[in-house]
Amino acid sequence: MYAASQGIAIAKVLVYSKGDLTVKEKFIENVEVEQQRFENAVFKAQREIEEIKEDTENKMGKESADIFGAHLLVLNDPELIKAVKDKINDSKVSAEFALKSTVDNFVAIFETMEDEYMKERAADIKDVSNRVLGHLLGVSNQNLSNLSEKVIIVADDLAPSDTASMDKEKVSGFITNVGGSTSHTAIMARNLEIPAIVGAVDITDKVKNGDVLILDAVGCKVVVNPSQDQIEEYKLKQKQFIEEKRKLNKYIDQQSKTKDGLVVELAANIGSPQDMEHVLANGAEGIGLYRTEFLYMDRDVSPTEDEQYESYKEVLEKMGDKPVVIRTLDIGGDKEIPYLNMPKEMNPFLGYRALRICLDNISMFKTQLRALLRASKFGNLKVMYPMVSSLEEIKEANDILEEVRCQLKAEGIEYRDFEVGIMIEIPAAAINSDALAKEVDFFSIGTNDLIQYTVAVDRMNEKISHLYSPFNPAVLKLINMTIANGHKNKIWTGMCGEAAGDLKMIPFLLGAGLDEFSMSPSAILPARELISKLTTKEAKEIKEKVLSMKTAKEIEEYLGNVISNI
Amino acid sequence: MYAASQGIAIAKVLVYSKGDLTVKEKFIENVEVEQQRFENAVFKAQREIEEIKEDTENKMGKESADIFGAHLLVLNDPELIKAVKDKINDSKVSAEFALKSTVDNFVAIFETMEDEYMKERAADIKDVSNRVLGHLLGVSNQNLSNLSEKVIIVADDLAPSDTASMDKEKVSGFITNVGGSTSHTAIMARNLEIPAIVGAVDITDKVKNGDVLILDAVGCKVVVNPSQDQIEEYKLKQKQFIEEKRKLNKYIDQQSKTKDGLVVELAANIGSPQDMEHVLANGAEGIGLYRTEFLYMDRDVSPTEDEQYESYKEVLEKMGDKPVVIRTLDIGGDKEIPYLNMPKEMNPFLGYRALRICLDNISMFKTQLRALLRASKFGNLKVMYPMVSSLEEIKEANDILEEVRCQLKAEGIEYRDFEVGIMIEIPAAAINSDALAKEVDFFSIGTNDLIQYTVAVDRMNEKISHLYSPFNPAVLKLINMTIANGHKNKIWTGMCGEAAGDLKMIPFLLGAGLDEFSMSPSAILPARELISKLTTKEAKEIKEKVLSMKTAKEIEEYLGNVISNI
Repeated sequence: MYAASQGIAIAKVLVYSKGDLTVKEKFIENVEVEQQRFENAVFKAQREIEEIKEDTENKMGKESADIFGAHLLVLNDPELIKAVKDKINDSKVSAEFALKSTVDNFVAIFETMEDEYMKERAADIKDVSNRVLGHLLGVSNQNLSNLSEKVIIVADDLAPSDTASMDKEKVSGFITNVGGSTSHTAIMARNLEIPAIVGAVDITDKVKNGDVLILDAVGCKVVVNPSQDQIEEYKLKQKQFIEEKRKLNKYIDQQSKTKDGLVVELAANIGSPQDMEHVLANGAEGIGLYRTEFLYMDRDVSPTEDEQYESYKEVLEKMGDKPVVIRTLDIGGDKEIPYLNMPKEMNPFLGYRALRICLDNISMFKTQLRALLRASKFGNLKVMYPMVSSLEEIKEANDILEEVRCQLKAEGIEYRDFEVGIMIEIPAAAINSDALAKEVDFFSIGTNDLIQYTVAVDRMNEKISHLYSPFNPAVLKLINMTIANGHKNKIWTGMCGEAAGDLKMIPFLLGAGLDEFSMSPSAILPARELISKLTTKEAKEIKEKVLSMKTAKEIEEYLGNVISNI
Repeated sequence: MYAASQGIAIAKVLVYSKGDLTVKEKFIENVEVEQQRFENAVFKAQREIEEIKEDTENKMGKESADIFGAHLLVLNDPELIKAVKDKINDSKVSAEFALKSTVDNFVAIFETMEDEYMKERAADIKDVSNRVLGHLLGVSNQNLSNLSEKVIIVADDLAPSDTASMDKEKVSGFITNVGGSTSHTAIMARNLEIPAIVGAVDITDKVKNGDVLILDAVGCKVVVNPSQDQIEEYKLKQKQFIEEKRKLNKYIDQQSKTKDGLVVELAANIGSPQDMEHVLANGAEGIGLYRTEFLYMDRDVSPTEDEQYESYKEVLEKMGDKPVVIRTLDIGGDKEIPYLNMPKEMNPFLGYRALRICLDNISMFKTQLRALLRASKFGNLKVMYPMVSSLEEIKEANDILEEVRCQLKAEGIEYRDFEVGIMIEIPAAAINSDALAKEVDFFSIGTNDLIQYTVAVDRMNEKISHLYSPFNPAVLKLINMTIANGHKNKIWTGMCGEAAGDLKMIPFLLGAGLDEFSMSPSAILPARELISKLTTKEAKEIKEKVLSMKTAKEIEEYLGNVISNI
């Protein structure tokens, strides 16, 4: 059980079930008949999605309906249709089985990715294919758009189309059997700010429609048909939770400042201009990481210079004079882009990624740099290169940037000078940070990758997940070393990995002198509150104490105690 | 073109060709007929191999014939036979195509591995399947066992069975179209100490039987039908080469000592007791790495305690009182063991490997530790754990070792106490080496993995191979830090990665204070010679100079100059 979105809900249960979509391997004789069945089901699903799209648009607005546009695109993907028809033909299997095995393969790859965006894509594909499967098997879905009273939805899992067409006024919470912190349901719940628990195993078997439920997604607890006393107790907790959340709101327009007046920057990580609303609502003082790779995904060719320019410009304008750090293309690893024909790799995380690809595909890289330079005059732009492991790579990238700059000048196109920095996410870069600092204007530490490489642990690999920890003493030494080398060379150092928003890490990072903390927008206000309660002296003492410790466990326990005593 | 085994040969060409084994996809009607054709071909190949085996044993001795025993095992592998027959049935393709596609798949996986042993297995499987393919297609091989005069063999590639049955007295050298430094042909040539050039692209088209050839596998050059002057010139070079090699022989029984008398240990890396002859012939002062995983490979169940005990005992006895460092099981990554049902991983190098597997399969680990303890009384054993990233792992492993030790004591089984060390091959271990040194008796730095993780580069990935370098300044800083922390805590530090035998690295490592250098046996004598010509003062100056440099290129150039001036 995992509290995917904090909060407390008390309401009646609605068990949401999707009909049995179980498919077994079945061999068929007539390939044409089977392919025709598949085409008919696709056609019916298209018609159905078009209807739901219109309906959702009318009831919930255009944005909620967007997802169905994406679903129509999936259904129109000739590659997918061809793959299923080929499978029917090559293996002589039923349309159901061909569809399911094709999609499962696809989804399995997407789901191993840590990226929220890719998880969402996997959820979309599964969602669409289940709809087609429903038509093939003759089973249909419940409808969540017309609810008569407030409910807590209990389901095996929720698909993007379920949440999009759902009547949000009436849904007090979700509980699902499956899912982890980055499952679609978890992401949706956080976006909608609805309390949710995922991974509750067999919750659908334990409750029935009409049961009253307490969903405590703070303490991560579920009470079925509670007593009146319990209801009173949780109503109070609910009130306190809302009160605490409200209190955090006072930090929205405040500076991020320690008790003794040291000012740091709390910035947000974003994936597209659409995330800006959330960023501004949470009082971010900048964008510490704009992941431009999403511009390159879900399409057949690279985005044009103009398309990129428009996206960068939009974010820069919305942020006014606040800093916006845009990271150049960071694909590879778990983020594939079909039209770039990237090689199949045995260890993609140790492979052809990010800046390595850009330095090998200079014209694509130049297009991005041109778009960035052109957008620079609309705000406070900073550009950063990902996956740097050596001095040579920085020099190579900067040479290309300089070439593009000269071209623009020659063409008479205006641009503003901007800071150029690098991600510190490869151990070699952290260890060599004294030398690298002399070539750049800032560092931004990417803890997710830095931990992976430093500890030699793929963070998605469940067999060894106990070894993946931001509290590993070697990782903390590298972070401390990087910040110290940045300051020694008079450049600022930020962090845009998940650790920057982890309350347990913040006292250490503050003590080490981190200048900028970039995180999910929703983590900003609690971080700002915590920082306001610490002095720099305390933070430095905490840092020293942590650096003297020898195991991740000891450090995490100590830091847990630190924040619970603040 | 790559000089796979140094030396110079002058002789007539024998172009060795293997008949055309090209196979195209072909669909068939009658599955039973096709499966029967396959079985017949397997049967013929078996008979043929048995004959060659007997013949080779009579002519070249038992050891040369061993390989054919292994080939018979491959042909008796029910999994392989079943896979091909299933393929015929499922895809309705010809026996030739089914065999080829099954084997290609298999070989492709093995060939991406860096390990020499795995490369050899891939070569064996290809070799056997080509023999079966020959029977299916009705083409047969030339015979290399009866040669009437000295020749240089020119071939597309050489298979293990070709080299095993080859009349070695008559073969002066090899040149092959394909192959890299770790191809089977390259490994064989080095073992036989026959000059060889591999990867010569289309050499088979450029020469014909009877051409005279100069094969210069020192300068990596081939001269076809040379002039008398050229022959004289190369005869002289050949003489000088042999002379230099002979001179190195004086170092066989010498201590490894710098000019000013500092003694270090030059040890050998081995994979099985069969490598011992080569080890002793090259004057190794110890075994710095005995890779026990080969005991676990190519079989259906784990080796028993007794089997392991016998292998360890044999190596310990052969080494007398010289140290023998045995590494506990290091599988995973690119080394799979089917019967352990290891998970399919997205990034196996960052995955479930080595000690991580042992701490998760305690009974298997205990069996190995029991065998080690029992063998300990036969020599100077030291045991080391691979892939350590934290203090907790060491403690966990040592607790298990202690438990096994108590069991043996209770059973009244004799053992001798031995040193327990760890590999330093994960950046976290190097960075945290001050703390780890307090828990172990020695360190052994594994540069191959250390480079991979520190620079985030899979060393097998050709797209980014330019980034994989032992001269990366961050890698050298970690090596220096590890040795310093070892000495600070009064434990010795060795190195068993490829860098330990690299002449360009040795002055730096000596300057950093490395105590033990473990390498391929053939690298020992040149290393010992180099060390004898350096003083510790010079080495320290070289180390300091290297640590002040900022790029791998600059460092490698500098160290290249250093050794060419000694």
